[in-house]
Amino acid sequence: MRFDILTLFPEMIENACRHSIISRAIQNDLISVNAINPRDYTHSKHKKVDDTPYGGGAGMVLMCQPFLDALKGVEREENSEVIMLTPQGERFNQNLAKEFSKKDQLIMICGHYEGFDERIRVLSGAREVSIGDFVLTGGELPALCVLDSTVRFVEGVLGKTESADYDSFEDGLLEYPHYTKPRLYDGLAVPEVLLNGNHAQIAQWRKEQQIIKTKKMRPDLWRDYLQNNNKL
Amino acid sequence: MRFDILTLFPEMIENACRHSIISRAIQNDLISVNAINPRDYTHSKHKKVDDTPYGGGAGMVLMCQPFLDALKGVEREENSEVIMLTPQGERFNQNLAKEFSKKDQLIMICGHYEGFDERIRVLSGAREVSIGDFVLTGGELPALCVLDSTVRFVEGVLGKTESADYDSFEDGLLEYPHYTKPRLYDGLAVPEVLLNGNHAQIAQWRKEQQIIKTKKMRPDLWRDYLQNNNKL
Repeated sequence: MRFDILTLFPEMIENACRHSIISRAIQNDLISVNAINPRDYTHSKHKKVDDTPYGGGAGMVLMCQPFLDALKGVEREENSEVIMLTPQGERFNQNLAKEFSKKDQLIMICGHYEGFDERIRVLSGAREVSIGDFVLTGGELPALCVLDSTVRFVEGVLGKTESADYDSFEDGLLEYPHYTKPRLYDGLAVPEVLLNGNHAQIAQWRKEQQIIKTKKMRPDLWRDYLQNNNKL
Repeated sequence: MRFDILTLFPEMIENACRHSIISRAIQNDLISVNAINPRDYTHSKHKKVDDTPYGGGAGMVLMCQPFLDALKGVEREENSEVIMLTPQGERFNQNLAKEFSKKDQLIMICGHYEGFDERIRVLSGAREVSIGDFVLTGGELPALCVLDSTVRFVEGVLGKTESADYDSFEDGLLEYPHYTKPRLYDGLAVPEVLLNGNHAQIAQWRKEQQIIKTKKMRPDLWRDYLQNNNKL
């Protein structure tokens, strides 16, 4: 799968791709990640990419030409999608990560400063995606979040021991608590049930813990879970 | 304000702090960011930080000792908060960013691999925070999102021209669309109202656009907005 990321800070993307799962997926030729700087496409003498907003107001607005020309310059795979990272977008979640992972190519446009000229959205046909109800200085961190969680669903990326099947949200519930050595730490013991080797009991305990945690931390998820399982 | 980030990948944090607003805030002595590696605190010969889960299952679980000792090693400011970045946590948003920005210190614990030993959460007293319903390989990207959006509320960080007052969510609505030069791009013109210099009309148009966008993209926010403004 191919990722093309339009950003004024390509080194932020490149640095992050040197770590962990993304780096390994690149080395194993399962994905490629290209960071493209719209500043390299600007027609202006001073490589200007932003200007003041029409109608007044704070901040600088990203200009159409450098971004749309950079986008035109991206070679397109057959099954490709263009997204923009903005706080106004539809909410990114695990299902969207799965959907993106089935594409051949995901092109992500990262903003910075006050925002994009609205015509970039219209003319690019990009889908607006948000990672949450908070404001960041740029779209780079959200693009890296989308990249990381999408890559986890690309075939071959996660080893067998890292299966995504038991991740939070996979069955509509939060994850159960984990314990590792030692059995006793600072007065706190690992729950007995995890030590007895009875797999059915362990599975039942874990499910109960998932339900307790989800009810407490995320009543909204719990409601959805009941609805999806026809218990409401 | 001081940020201490416990992570097995300190260079991910350090790289990201070389850019943009975070880098500028550090240079201006408005914030400090320290990345601490729990691996440096492990008592084991092979600097082991994780082990297999009790009760079986995929993945490796982060061990209590290196993380809790690293946390004890962090010098505490008076008004400090400890958070863990996990998909099970309460949802991070703009209000939480504001709340964190009022602290003297935010200590963030980043997980990796399958997750934390549950006793790390209990013994650290950390508040679990999630940036969204998706799973990432580690807590580093979420920690950087929390850092970036919190720093925007630290006094002196945003210049006057970058005020956070008009950001999305500030008034419970999404942002209005922005336009900059040129007036006409690829057949699309800047809306006339933004060119006439009538500030009252511009403000009214922008508010209308906020409402249209919020209703379309985020019916949930729109419902909250009506409720908060006693219109429901």
